[in-house]
Amino acid sequence: MKKLINNPNNVLVDMLDGLTSAYPEYLKKLDGTNVILRADKSKNKVSIISGGGSGHEPAHAGYVGYGMLDGAVCGEVFTSPTPDQIYEAIKATDDGKGTLLVIKNYTGDVMNFEMAREMAEMEGIKVEEVIVNDDVAVEDSLYTAGRRGIAGTVFVHKISGAKAESGSTLEDVKRVADKTVANVRSMGMSLSSCIVPAAGKANFVLGEDEVEIGMGIHGEPGTHREKISSADQIVEHLMNKILDDITINNGEEVAVLINGLGSTPNMELYIINKKVSEILEGKKIRIHRTFIGEFMTSLEMAGFSISILKLDEELKNLLDAKANTPGFKVF
Amino acid sequence: MKKLINNPNNVLVDMLDGLTSAYPEYLKKLDGTNVILRADKSKNKVSIISGGGSGHEPAHAGYVGYGMLDGAVCGEVFTSPTPDQIYEAIKATDDGKGTLLVIKNYTGDVMNFEMAREMAEMEGIKVEEVIVNDDVAVEDSLYTAGRRGIAGTVFVHKISGAKAESGSTLEDVKRVADKTVANVRSMGMSLSSCIVPAAGKANFVLGEDEVEIGMGIHGEPGTHREKISSADQIVEHLMNKILDDITINNGEEVAVLINGLGSTPNMELYIINKKVSEILEGKKIRIHRTFIGEFMTSLEMAGFSISILKLDEELKNLLDAKANTPGFKVF
Repeated sequence: MKKLINNPNNVLVDMLDGLTSAYPEYLKKLDGTNVILRADKSKNKVSIISGGGSGHEPAHAGYVGYGMLDGAVCGEVFTSPTPDQIYEAIKATDDGKGTLLVIKNYTGDVMNFEMAREMAEMEGIKVEEVIVNDDVAVEDSLYTAGRRGIAGTVFVHKISGAKAESGSTLEDVKRVADKTVANVRSMGMSLSSCIVPAAGKANFVLGEDEVEIGMGIHGEPGTHREKISSADQIVEHLMNKILDDITINNGEEVAVLINGLGSTPNMELYIINKKVSEILEGKKIRIHRTFIGEFMTSLEMAGFSISILKLDEELKNLLDAKANTPGFKVF
Repeated sequence: MKKLINNPNNVLVDMLDGLTSAYPEYLKKLDGTNVILRADKSKNKVSIISGGGSGHEPAHAGYVGYGMLDGAVCGEVFTSPTPDQIYEAIKATDDGKGTLLVIKNYTGDVMNFEMAREMAEMEGIKVEEVIVNDDVAVEDSLYTAGRRGIAGTVFVHKISGAKAESGSTLEDVKRVADKTVANVRSMGMSLSSCIVPAAGKANFVLGEDEVEIGMGIHGEPGTHREKISSADQIVEHLMNKILDDITINNGEEVAVLINGLGSTPNMELYIINKKVSEILEGKKIRIHRTFIGEFMTSLEMAGFSISILKLDEELKNLLDAKANTPGFKVF
């Protein structure tokens, strides 16, 4: 294992220290926890809390800031944060308008966020939740009942965050978050595994010319392995799966997110986007906005995912609203 | 070679198509060239042109936009663009106030940009240039006389771009660009090589537990190879080299750029920044702003570089000025 770390058992704390040192104008750590909060939380708004296991940076702490998250609860690598930490995040950010929890669909995350919700509700805090399950690859998986939540989650952060920032009620923020979940689909593929620091070895191994299609962001098995083909062929396969799963008509608009999993050069992500945009144009689906980069990574895994979000006027306006976070900025 | 590409000989064209499809509000391609221009160039300002070999994405085309570059000339992977393409970029962006060329110090780049400059001057266009040589690792190198230009170049784009956007003269834009070059120092290290698509194999090989200190962004040899140590020890070595090379006094301010070379997880970049900020704080050097991410990559190379820019009031204001490009945004 060749990694730029100090003690493998200390990566979470070291990373959060490095992150808050870099962005003091955006972020602060809640004392005694692994919760990252906004340094300058807007007042009198619904708070948006997300989080999960670490190893997906810049998710989730990198999305704490104006127009997105108020708090990110950071578990150990690929490990759900504990309910008490999530509860602390809710308590620290609530100012009477309630909290929306944005949860990726993993059994541990759902259980722990829901326990924290109950704890907060017993204190009289209004809490709602939305469970993101955008990955069309497989039903049920290593750590998931139903579909997994992957990079499409970033759209849920953006849109619910913008709605909350506008002063809307918890019910209304939850409504647009639910609509985003209903409208987003994703799928990924990998060329390599990744190495959890504390484990010290790859959690799966692919052959020299082999790729895994539809794997999860913790290396959970996908639909199958195959010999690597061209970028165009791979994109075509993923886009077919995505577009088979949601009806997007001629002339309707979408947002596109091409997400690098950790080791894929930006050059290759741009090449992938060429084919994605050709496929959408071929179907007369209009591309409102495209985001290319690393948004929901799997440590140093090579590979990518595509997320397609079907837009209506409301979602479009919320997607275009100002966001200012370390990892995601919209003017 | 496991890469997400189509034809290895076509990566440049495919990538530029994917990039302009993603960001039509920012970018357009100059017909018949590999030059990327602003879709909405501000009028009546000095134009800023940069570029070089591809494989460093988001550099350089990702920095085309408000407050940074007006044009990026994109060569084949790790290959300087030709003078005629650079000349076309100058011609397409000049509107009578002149052009500043921001050149990384590689022999091919310097030669070709200077030939293009002569061609433009013969047409009566005022052209100035600045050669960035921020890498403190080695004097002279595989493709360079003197020091190499690496990630510190992004600060030169940002600061000269902001000055140009403010309506300054070419002389004044060149002055702040020169000051930035005088004030920035960088150094990097790698855990792995990268693979140029058309070559199909790594351009160097490191052992299982070996790293290269001070290598260049095309894999040019650094100062030495060593057994991997902790992130803290590696950062300490690089920071010593950087701070030995420039006098930064107690109480002075700097900007920090922690640049991932392609495969290094954001988690590790944050861990690196923890030590960088501790070292600076220990010396009572104040950190005005930190940028962490992939800014000047080497395809899928694992590793990172640190750039430190010493600030005065003028540079600070220009660094903080609004920039809106696909790869670099400052509110």
